[in-house]
Amino acid sequence: MTFVTFRSDDAWRPGLLLTGGVLDLAAAAKTDGGAPLPTDPSELLALGPAAWDRMRDLADAATRDGRPLLAEGDLTLGPPLPRPGKILCIGLNYRRHAAESGMAEPAEPVLFSKFGNTVVGPDAPVAIGGRTQVDYESELALVIGRTAKNVAETDALDHVAGYLNANDLSERELQMRSGQWLLGKTLDGFLPIGPYLVSADAVGDPGDLPVRGRLNGETRQDSRTSDLIFSVPEILAYVTRFMTLEPGDLICTGTPEGVILGRDPKVWLKPGDVYEVEVGPLGILRTPFVADPPN
Amino acid sequence: MTFVTFRSDDAWRPGLLLTGGVLDLAAAAKTDGGAPLPTDPSELLALGPAAWDRMRDLADAATRDGRPLLAEGDLTLGPPLPRPGKILCIGLNYRRHAAESGMAEPAEPVLFSKFGNTVVGPDAPVAIGGRTQVDYESELALVIGRTAKNVAETDALDHVAGYLNANDLSERELQMRSGQWLLGKTLDGFLPIGPYLVSADAVGDPGDLPVRGRLNGETRQDSRTSDLIFSVPEILAYVTRFMTLEPGDLICTGTPEGVILGRDPKVWLKPGDVYEVEVGPLGILRTPFVADPPN
Repeated sequence: MTFVTFRSDDAWRPGLLLTGGVLDLAAAAKTDGGAPLPTDPSELLALGPAAWDRMRDLADAATRDGRPLLAEGDLTLGPPLPRPGKILCIGLNYRRHAAESGMAEPAEPVLFSKFGNTVVGPDAPVAIGGRTQVDYESELALVIGRTAKNVAETDALDHVAGYLNANDLSERELQMRSGQWLLGKTLDGFLPIGPYLVSADAVGDPGDLPVRGRLNGETRQDSRTSDLIFSVPEILAYVTRFMTLEPGDLICTGTPEGVILGRDPKVWLKPGDVYEVEVGPLGILRTPFVADPPN
Repeated sequence: MTFVTFRSDDAWRPGLLLTGGVLDLAAAAKTDGGAPLPTDPSELLALGPAAWDRMRDLADAATRDGRPLLAEGDLTLGPPLPRPGKILCIGLNYRRHAAESGMAEPAEPVLFSKFGNTVVGPDAPVAIGGRTQVDYESELALVIGRTAKNVAETDALDHVAGYLNANDLSERELQMRSGQWLLGKTLDGFLPIGPYLVSADAVGDPGDLPVRGRLNGETRQDSRTSDLIFSVPEILAYVTRFMTLEPGDLICTGTPEGVILGRDPKVWLKPGDVYEVEVGPLGILRTPFVADPPN
């Protein structure tokens, strides 16, 4: 299944991308006599497995009954998860990215975070006026689908609801200023995600997906998740030794080499630039940069 | 006004502590013909100024009409804000704490974060079995009441809904392991808050409040917010240059000297210990430590 959100009356509504168009999930749930679905996508995904089971039934019924679908091209798609629970990020998690950053490969995952003010969807303009060292980071991200505490690596993937593209935008001067990376990672709009949240069963093994990023059409990042130092199961096993993960939590798994920080000379992102992230079958996440915040 | 939450049917409900007892806010809102109030305290506080205006009216009406109140002693109080938006913490923000930590006084606020899995209320047991370097941190915390972006220091306090005690629990070995403090700060249950969220008008100037902490009855921390390197208005002005704050965000302003990290020898917290935080008029936040997670 491919989960999306689309704009309706100034809010994001949950939908499924089916052959032929987008199913309005909350509307479909009103007509089949079953339980209602939250119209808030974050609230829906926080329900965990029950939400995914219900969505699958609604998709099957819509296909069987030939329910009218919305044309994807007519919709403004939003972040698949507009308000994640946690936003947990893994730093320095690709071998060649650790090298280009001049850092040793970490012996354990390096954890940091962003706040919810960072989350925007595909094609949403990100304001960077006055920021001096803005950098992109193409990443495979995942949404937790089932409460996870002390999970074993072998069971870890059962706790993933699905996968999505993320651009872990970073202002390097702010990131390094105090030693704590948070400040440079959590500027408004600094986590574009989407356009699709593809269910885990449709992705299969996340261990060898291509991870690509393009700046104004020029390939800047081109790696595979097989270069991850800590794989998705290893990350989940490690993290849940320390904290409980809940449905609707978002994890960004790290970026491969090719970021501006590792280039010489370093030409930082500027208004007018466009960056695209494309991880495996997760669609293309396009982000235009502007000087001032959009109204 | 003094905002609390109390347990009812396995959930936290919002209340106000009035002379004579606790007003059940959601119940009171059902009887006066006005707008309903969310029964979820976090959802209520996320409404911002409108929620506080409505709560004030309900408190006035309850006092005027002699509405029956719940006895505080009969209630189990919870965290005043069970699900904060952001949880933003300021590190090394007291002069004498920076000194005892062997760190230079920072030139700018040092920002880090915790996740929502850390939040527990007064008297809630915190499991620390298997953790080796658990430390307390008594702090003045605040809840944002009004959206704040690029606020001036002179206007900053207008964006604070109220103040509460916080214990920014820290596992020092984990905190220092990768350089990013998050891991050691965000273990389950590692942010006791409460018991009261006292409205900003009732606290007045937060710039010279006593900040005290007691381990098993012995005073360990005894300072004042006048020793803060960055005051509450300075923190808000700084932070909102970089990110938008929203109603329901929580900020922990830092801890004064007296933490275990700064003692010799360092006898870390162990199951059976009890720590109490008491900041000015915010009540006493008592936290018992246990080996295993409560059921």
